[in-house]
Amino acid sequence: MKKHNFSAGPCILPAEVFQQASEAVLDFNNSGLSILEISHRSKDFVAVIEEARNLALELLQLDNNKYTALFLHGGASMQFLMTPHNLLEKKAAYLNTGTWASKAIKEAKLFGEVIEVASSEDKNFNYIPKNFEIPTGIDYFHCTSNNTIYGTQLKSFPKSNAPLVCDMSSDIFSRDIDYSQFDLIYAGAQKNIGPAGTTLVIINKAILGKVSRKIPSILDYKSHIEKESMFNTPSVFAIYTSLLNLRWLKKQGGVSALAKINKHKAELLYAELDRNPLFTPYANKEDRSLMNITFNLANPELSHTFDALWQQAGINALNGHRSLGGYRASIYNALTVESVQLLTEVMQELENKA
Amino acid sequence: MKKHNFSAGPCILPAEVFQQASEAVLDFNNSGLSILEISHRSKDFVAVIEEARNLALELLQLDNNKYTALFLHGGASMQFLMTPHNLLEKKAAYLNTGTWASKAIKEAKLFGEVIEVASSEDKNFNYIPKNFEIPTGIDYFHCTSNNTIYGTQLKSFPKSNAPLVCDMSSDIFSRDIDYSQFDLIYAGAQKNIGPAGTTLVIINKAILGKVSRKIPSILDYKSHIEKESMFNTPSVFAIYTSLLNLRWLKKQGGVSALAKINKHKAELLYAELDRNPLFTPYANKEDRSLMNITFNLANPELSHTFDALWQQAGINALNGHRSLGGYRASIYNALTVESVQLLTEVMQELENKA
Ligand SMILES: Cc1ncc(COP(=O)(O)O)c(C=O)c1O
Ligand SMILES: Cc1ncc(COP(=O)(O)O)c(C=O)c1O
Ligand SMILES: [Mg+2]
Ligand SMILES: [Mg+2]
Ligand SMILES: [Mg+2]
Ligand SMILES: [Mg+2]
Repeated sequence: MKKHNFSAGPCILPAEVFQQASEAVLDFNNSGLSILEISHRSKDFVAVIEEARNLALELLQLDNNKYTALFLHGGASMQFLMTPHNLLEKKAAYLNTGTWASKAIKEAKLFGEVIEVASSEDKNFNYIPKNFEIPTGIDYFHCTSNNTIYGTQLKSFPKSNAPLVCDMSSDIFSRDIDYSQFDLIYAGAQKNIGPAGTTLVIINKAILGKVSRKIPSILDYKSHIEKESMFNTPSVFAIYTSLLNLRWLKKQGGVSALAKINKHKAELLYAELDRNPLFTPYANKEDRSLMNITFNLANPELSHTFDALWQQAGINALNGHRSLGGYRASIYNALTVESVQLLTEVMQELENKA
Repeated sequence: MKKHNFSAGPCILPAEVFQQASEAVLDFNNSGLSILEISHRSKDFVAVIEEARNLALELLQLDNNKYTALFLHGGASMQFLMTPHNLLEKKAAYLNTGTWASKAIKEAKLFGEVIEVASSEDKNFNYIPKNFEIPTGIDYFHCTSNNTIYGTQLKSFPKSNAPLVCDMSSDIFSRDIDYSQFDLIYAGAQKNIGPAGTTLVIINKAILGKVSRKIPSILDYKSHIEKESMFNTPSVFAIYTSLLNLRWLKKQGGVSALAKINKHKAELLYAELDRNPLFTPYANKEDRSLMNITFNLANPELSHTFDALWQQAGINALNGHRSLGGYRASIYNALTVESVQLLTEVMQELENKA
């Protein structure tokens, strides 16, 4: 039985993407070769990576001349390091909204002064700090648009003269915002982009070249831009599958079409959580994520019954992050409204039983 | 028509590995989930990465207590950086046998003194320097076991008191040598291990912890060892497919069984190159690689005819590396004797025509 997959990442992708990726492992483009055995320098793969890079910018409505899109190795965590390595000369400001933001801060401290403009650690990151000030004279400001673990999301982004850097690992391509307010966006592919194994990095080229340190070539955004995202052997299959997924997204009507469906899915689920006395949402109401919906059972003793119910219903991976516990429903682009409806029905079933 | 794939990497893998990987993209382990959508923390994937790490050591006959195997991001090129970052305190010695060795040297120089013990650049890397001396007081000695571009291969490795570090990207698991003479082995997966997108790193844990610099966590071998190769989201599909390939290798009888076949394939091809007056092998005879066989046409004007012949025969990717030109037949583990025979027949056909 096909599962209803609420995994936080790696996560569900459209069924047609799985189908096409599976076929390409046997025979890519009727070439008589698997996508796994072709040279990354082959005409066919160069076309794939070019289309993927262009399509990423197109879907975010970003100017192809100003921005460049790269598919890099290392996961989002590698960007915690590459960002300060390339951009931090003296000091940078970071907003601390959870585990991932904290890890980004930790790496940045190896390169210069880090000003933590605000933190929601006092309430275990169940909200997004507001009304903080961005200091002047910083090299950049860094934030995490969506906090995968806690289920909080920035609804708007601060204005400042400094370059704006954003870890969008868990909500890129999911909502209709002005992506051109950012100067550097990065995202591990394994949520709304594709499978694990590649990382999308989008850079406003004008912000580069301003630090005085020597950057090892593989960590230098400029090397990757110069080599058109082929500084070394790229993650061929992960990039191809990401392209399949971006094509699917375009066919659905692009980011704004998905944004509407995502909003609808989240509203369905939050409405049930608010209505149903057995469940308590974790995140502060106005900061609720539309991608990762975190909640607890009002009475933890019901967990065995609830777990049995959702597992019997064919739901996968509803447990919260191991650092937080509770539950988390990750409802990325490819998850259908039907899957969300099923989850709300299971919640009602628990209510009827309890 | 299925091709005879002589690509230098990414490259051919066994047909049954493509089949199993393709099936897992639709449904992994009868779970109702694609291998692309499962959490890397799921029981099923933790079992995959553990088996892959253990099997890598087992196939190389390395002691599980002394060595640890990791599947990391970034390709072999990331190891050009991680090696000196983790090991180079004062000075290291490198053998320069080509492009990849030179790139490794370049990154190492950011961290300390680099002594190039010998270089074959004088003859465009068509041989392996011998009788060089390894200086005392170095932090490690680094070499490239097989030079993918030039088709040369180290037949033995120098003894020294310093840790021995080896880039084995293009010949790991292909020959019967004493792997325990090395303290650190790394290899991009995309040759004899699996698809592009993951890198195998094998470390004698005793050599770590000796540099005084602060290492960013994602570049620190110790973080990866501590987190059992899951410091961050690993390249799930590439690691799973690598496991399928390592299982295949074990089923064939392991490294020594493949080593025999590889030797036979290389002998077939070199014999034809030596015999056939139309072809000139590139590498110095005693340094010939058993994995990448480089050669030129004695008369370059025959290239159109030759290219048409091998392409018609269903042979893929016989062109030399773009930096060297000529031809290169990469005959990795999964390439069959039949494919090599076919190539020798095409060479004879050219001779009969010319
Ligand atoms: C917001 C965010 N940033 C960073 C990461 C780390 O990503 P990776 O595992 O690709 O390094 C994650 C992982 O889930 C994430 O959700
Ligand atoms: C011997 C050797 N070392 C290093 C590399 C670079 O590997 P990657 O592209 O994974 O960084 C290659 C690539 O072919 C290679 O053959
Ligand atoms: Mg978080
Ligand atoms: Mg409630
Ligand atoms: Mg080389
Ligand atoms: Mg000859």
